Amino acid sequence: MNITLVGGGSWGTAIARLLVNNGHSLNFCIRNKTVIKDLENNKENSKYLPGSKFEKDFNLTDDLKSVIKDIDVFVIGVPTSACREILESIKEDLSKDTIIVNLSKGIELETLDRISEISEEILPDNPFVALSGPSHAEEVGKDIPTTVVVSSKDLEAARIIQKEFSTSVFRIYTNPDLIGVEMGGALKNIIALAAGMNDGLEFGDNSKAALMTRGIYEMSKLGIAMGANPHTFNGLSGIGDLIVTCTSMHSRNRRAGILIGKGLSMEEACKEVGQVVEGVKTVKSAYRLAKLKNIEMPITDILYKVLYENYDPLIAVKDLMTRKNKDEIEQIFFE
Amino acid sequence: MNITLVGGGSWGTAIARLLVNNGHSLNFCIRNKTVIKDLENNKENSKYLPGSKFEKDFNLTDDLKSVIKDIDVFVIGVPTSACREILESIKEDLSKDTIIVNLSKGIELETLDRISEISEEILPDNPFVALSGPSHAEEVGKDIPTTVVVSSKDLEAARIIQKEFSTSVFRIYTNPDLIGVEMGGALKNIIALAAGMNDGLEFGDNSKAALMTRGIYEMSKLGIAMGANPHTFNGLSGIGDLIVTCTSMHSRNRRAGILIGKGLSMEEACKEVGQVVEGVKTVKSAYRLAKLKNIEMPITDILYKVLYENYDPLIAVKDLMTRKNKDEIEQIFFE
Repeated sequence: MNITLVGGGSWGTAIARLLVNNGHSLNFCIRNKTVIKDLENNKENSKYLPGSKFEKDFNLTDDLKSVIKDIDVFVIGVPTSACREILESIKEDLSKDTIIVNLSKGIELETLDRISEISEEILPDNPFVALSGPSHAEEVGKDIPTTVVVSSKDLEAARIIQKEFSTSVFRIYTNPDLIGVEMGGALKNIIALAAGMNDGLEFGDNSKAALMTRGIYEMSKLGIAMGANPHTFNGLSGIGDLIVTCTSMHSRNRRAGILIGKGLSMEEACKEVGQVVEGVKTVKSAYRLAKLKNIEMPITDILYKVLYENYDPLIAVKDLMTRKNKDEIEQIFFE
Repeated sequence: MNITLVGGGSWGTAIARLLVNNGHSLNFCIRNKTVIKDLENNKENSKYLPGSKFEKDFNLTDDLKSVIKDIDVFVIGVPTSACREILESIKEDLSKDTIIVNLSKGIELETLDRISEISEEILPDNPFVALSGPSHAEEVGKDIPTTVVVSSKDLEAARIIQKEFSTSVFRIYTNPDLIGVEMGGALKNIIALAAGMNDGLEFGDNSKAALMTRGIYEMSKLGIAMGANPHTFNGLSGIGDLIVTCTSMHSRNRRAGILIGKGLSMEEACKEVGQVVEGVKTVKSAYRLAKLKNIEMPITDILYKVLYENYDPLIAVKDLMTRKNKDEIEQIFFE
């Protein structure tokens, strides 16, 4: 297939490499000139995905408009905050048949839109597919077995992406619940920040597992209020992605949380992690959505206070651990 | 309260210390004379729970029969395979009001009974409470915050244990679904063995998260067939305990799995871990239960082949990763 992928961060690069090695004809569009040079000379993005070589040729460019016509698939691999601008910039030139595949996981801050809603607004005729699930770029870039999920309102488009993006070590399931898949991917970053804080404060594995258990429940509550299928939160894009993001050192959100737990400010932590920490913005989006939908989200509330109101992380984690005793099953399902 | 606790392993010791420090009058019954001496002289079980001091006095004995009369609570902290014998040995002397609290997580191999069923058979009049959830002894022994769940057919008994065992850093929820709580605690050890194999074979965090996602589904399928409430598997004794057991180096089951993944036999791995690895027996019990209930359990089946039929761990994990593509939501909920 003819594919254009925009975004030269770690996840964009991992998917670009997978598509190239899979035999697709790829236009890889990157803003950063140093990364382009590195890929041209060394077939590697050593800044964001060191050690992962592209094995076949592909087209590199920093001019997105020049690689939009006559493509079968357009892959978005940029942070959530840049998605709208990217889609606006290509809407005149994109064919209505081109499938949009989104790799980013977030909720637009100003509108509280999911990426599929942004895409539908700007490109109403193009099929939209979300790709999500437990998939750190560092492992996909090393061909370590990974299982993800694709979701779309257009099942046919989802099946095409499933077929064309799959390899023997990158397995793809489909799930028709687009809202659930997008919400799971976005909200898990909030819980990962909290889990990182737990680790930075040395609260231990028991406490983190309890936090994650409350976390998936909190995620699903908001997701269900938005129209998601509750079962999706039990799948790869829900608990699967939550587990990997809260436990792996590859997770930027967890790493940022660890640094905050150790006493750094949100700004300092994000700077040290280097790439975009989506969860920091998602906390704000989810906080607002929860208020709109009248959903209680204690972990999100506390994170909001830590990130935006200088609340002490130690007191925050203690607050979460000392909520009033209730029957667990009541706490979880009937409150 | 007057409490007798039997079992001087790490978990028994952690709960004994918690009860003593909480001001209860404890008889701590241990078979191993070296451990008794150590506790007498150093207020510490340095073999199984190093670094955790008992802060108040308690009674040590190796004669269980001598500390059974006039107690309010009897706590079982021995491996599953020893529970029946222990309960048989005390049934003549135990008051009918004494609450049995069980800490062990398994399914009796010969009968496929849960511990509550064994207790009900031998001591039909005594209230039985299961204590479960994400709670590595090493952290509880260091007063690192931990949240667990107690479950009983007798809600009053569960509430008593909740009240008497709770501390500011050991929080207890109640859940009335005894079957679900017991099944979750037992079955998660199977998935932890598989997760350990994944790690020993260096299959990565993405792959392990996918395995755990399939794992909680497989656990809940068998649990539901036995009469459990599906929601329990989303709680502390389900996904919570699964997460901590699959990701923490404190987990014996995970450590055994890592060693098997690295090429050791099941016997060699268990020997190196030192204490009982419950999952090794639970695989056999669950395998039989699944056949009886006609439930498909792919992870349990593969583990059974690795542990008992010399199947290669590398091929086993590959088998799990390369099952036929299906819609995820179908795979999980409608198969």
